[in-house]
Amino acid sequence: MARELTAPARMHLALSAGVGGVHQGAWRREGSRVEEWGTIELMVDLARQAEAALLDAFFISDLSSVNREALRVQQPYLYFEPLTMLSALAMRTERIGLVATASTTFSEPYTLARQVAALDQISKGRAGWNAVTSSVGSQNFGHREWPDHDTRYERAEEFAAVVTGLWDSWEPDALVRDRAAGRFADPAKVHPLDHDGPRFRVAGPLNVPRSPQGRPVIVQAGSSEPGRDLAARHASMVFTAQQDADESRAFIHDIRSRAEGFGRRRSDVVVLPGLSPVIGDTEEDATRIREELLDLVDEPTAVARLADQLGGADLSGLGFSDVIPPGRLPDPASVQGRRSRYELFHRLATTELWTVRRLVGLEAASYGHWSIAGTAEQIADAMSERFRTGAADGFVLLPPSQDMLTRFFERVVPILQERGLFRTEYEGVTLREHLGVSAPDRASV
Amino acid sequence: MARELTAPARMHLALSAGVGGVHQGAWRREGSRVEEWGTIELMVDLARQAEAALLDAFFISDLSSVNREALRVQQPYLYFEPLTMLSALAMRTERIGLVATASTTFSEPYTLARQVAALDQISKGRAGWNAVTSSVGSQNFGHREWPDHDTRYERAEEFAAVVTGLWDSWEPDALVRDRAAGRFADPAKVHPLDHDGPRFRVAGPLNVPRSPQGRPVIVQAGSSEPGRDLAARHASMVFTAQQDADESRAFIHDIRSRAEGFGRRRSDVVVLPGLSPVIGDTEEDATRIREELLDLVDEPTAVARLADQLGGADLSGLGFSDVIPPGRLPDPASVQGRRSRYELFHRLATTELWTVRRLVGLEAASYGHWSIAGTAEQIADAMSERFRTGAADGFVLLPPSQDMLTRFFERVVPILQERGLFRTEYEGVTLREHLGVSAPDRASV
Repeated sequence: MARELTAPARMHLALSAGVGGVHQGAWRREGSRVEEWGTIELMVDLARQAEAALLDAFFISDLSSVNREALRVQQPYLYFEPLTMLSALAMRTERIGLVATASTTFSEPYTLARQVAALDQISKGRAGWNAVTSSVGSQNFGHREWPDHDTRYERAEEFAAVVTGLWDSWEPDALVRDRAAGRFADPAKVHPLDHDGPRFRVAGPLNVPRSPQGRPVIVQAGSSEPGRDLAARHASMVFTAQQDADESRAFIHDIRSRAEGFGRRRSDVVVLPGLSPVIGDTEEDATRIREELLDLVDEPTAVARLADQLGGADLSGLGFSDVIPPGRLPDPASVQGRRSRYELFHRLATTELWTVRRLVGLEAASYGHWSIAGTAEQIADAMSERFRTGAADGFVLLPPSQDMLTRFFERVVPILQERGLFRTEYEGVTLREHLGVSAPDRASV
Repeated sequence: MARELTAPARMHLALSAGVGGVHQGAWRREGSRVEEWGTIELMVDLARQAEAALLDAFFISDLSSVNREALRVQQPYLYFEPLTMLSALAMRTERIGLVATASTTFSEPYTLARQVAALDQISKGRAGWNAVTSSVGSQNFGHREWPDHDTRYERAEEFAAVVTGLWDSWEPDALVRDRAAGRFADPAKVHPLDHDGPRFRVAGPLNVPRSPQGRPVIVQAGSSEPGRDLAARHASMVFTAQQDADESRAFIHDIRSRAEGFGRRRSDVVVLPGLSPVIGDTEEDATRIREELLDLVDEPTAVARLADQLGGADLSGLGFSDVIPPGRLPDPASVQGRRSRYELFHRLATTELWTVRRLVGLEAASYGHWSIAGTAEQIADAMSERFRTGAADGFVLLPPSQDMLTRFFERVVPILQERGLFRTEYEGVTLREHLGVSAPDRASV
């Protein structure tokens, strides 16, 4: 299947860098900036590196909890809550999009709509919201029974409808500011929402005027059935884990078809699979770096994380060289969170018979995203191939470590630019313009 | 009653500027910056003016709703949600404290604790949280029955206990970052909270390490009985509306005695009454400016706001020159929100027999805070008198308009400095240091 005609001619790139590398062992690697961990200056520097490389967006993933046991050997999730951090970064960057992850399960839609809209005002139209339903963290939010997957997605659908409705409260010309006549705004152009649904009751209007982008960009990363519908209905950017090119093409086709079914244009959804690039001077060098990173991982912690990805499988007694016996793995239908990721690890363990070490390597490097090792040229080739054949509209970069991040910008981006596959300057100002997606029309809601 | 020995030798000043003036009519006044309203640049400029004047804190009040009817003639609450805005301002200021208002009624304690802790990290120890229980906004948060005053304060007490407990999760030396040994943190120094109370169930730990300030500063502004207890237990800075010096002294004495009862030092609570200064070249000039501002107010809107301050009183048919007949005013005990403010307006209307215009003037200028008009010298005298006689540890400035804000910094601050009553340079770095209040010890919780 060739690229759809509506697809963009250049790929889109976002950076999800954690605190300088997403690999579990990255902080221990020579050249990591673990001493700067927890400073806003490190985050400013990462965002500015991404902006200097002309990326579409700086993407902040998030969890609302910390794994206390794993703290000994791995850095926990960011110090900084994404919306406050990105508001700070907005003052030190000019063009790059700023995407904050926030949970529909743990937040109130009025506050979330307001904070994302404020980020859009502060950044002059560069805000994005990555809507997640969360599969961990309930212990910090009073849930006595953890809502199941479908219930979380039902809430997420209603949540997103409230948020977008609130973002549409103000018409673009609602502000009058006529000193002499004493007319500040035109109340006829500021609309209540009066939402009264099964989970939320929100009157509105939002206390933030029209967003510079019309609406901030919604990003979605769920790949389950309800996740795909949520993405197709609301998201302009979809972040997905795809190992296989054919499956990725099928996924993109499915998302675009669903979007069309919801009355949207196929080109208004940009799908970016995750990519963890290990870049060496030679292919052998890249493989060596991959193994070095894996050697920095704490084995019991890594196996425990793998067990989580496998739906809470019992991996006790298994060594790194073992293949997991099928009886150890729970039935996919019983898994309530990150279901699509579970299906991937399940398949690699059962159909492809990957060893525990190889599975751990994938999990530790990029928690299940496409991970490739090679020279800059080989990485660029692999990316170009997927882009040209309609298996990706671009990528969310998940550099395993600080040095791989720098190498990607120094070595791979210039190759993509030479080939005409990536921008050589920012043409737009807003995230929506970088992605080439239109703003939903208020009337079409 | 003279100043208590524990009181500071210099006054503390915070600025609550709205968007350049808190008077209802301010946006219409010559020199207002209403054209810049909604830009982060305006807020940056206000914060920097306050920092150049060496103020302790830049204070952002907040509501989680917009009054759609009043939009025609008055600017609504800020575009910017306080925590995101102050995170942005942290990158453009160096020393001034940054205090964000956030509601205990509409928020989750884990998220709030995290965002304030992030602001403290971003600003390197300058964050404050003004904990409010909110008396409006329920329509945006699904409440079918609005919780009454006491219920809101019970929630607020538990909320504050959870937040401070989460802030204490990490011991100062919990981070190890030992690359070679593969030890990132010492889990024995990262503590769960395991809070299981009537309203919240929060396991912790927080996913933000120890705050630069030990704990961010808590600010409280309720003056009712449960409000005073909340302040005395948790707050390092208390913002209060006080017209009368004797009452203000009694209030401060009461708050400090309650704090002592909770095992705290009297000097660890700084009480700052609000102050709305109208500064003229002469006394007559100041009076003229006050009347000019009142003339810019929309009368029906102002009377409606006054009716709100009077607990929903029916003021229909009353003219500006009338005194409110006592039968129009509801019983104070039946009023559920902003009760102390209601008692003030009730007293002025019934005991002092203020006219509707005079009441509106107070409400529109500063919604009930101490409002004085005079020359810079007279304003400084009035402030000095209250400070020297123990009726204030300083003030939260509520300049009615942009020009009054500028005049205060240009004319009043230098007089206070000459008299040795206000700092001539920042001595500390954190908000806690500016206020001269110690950080609560984790062990004392």
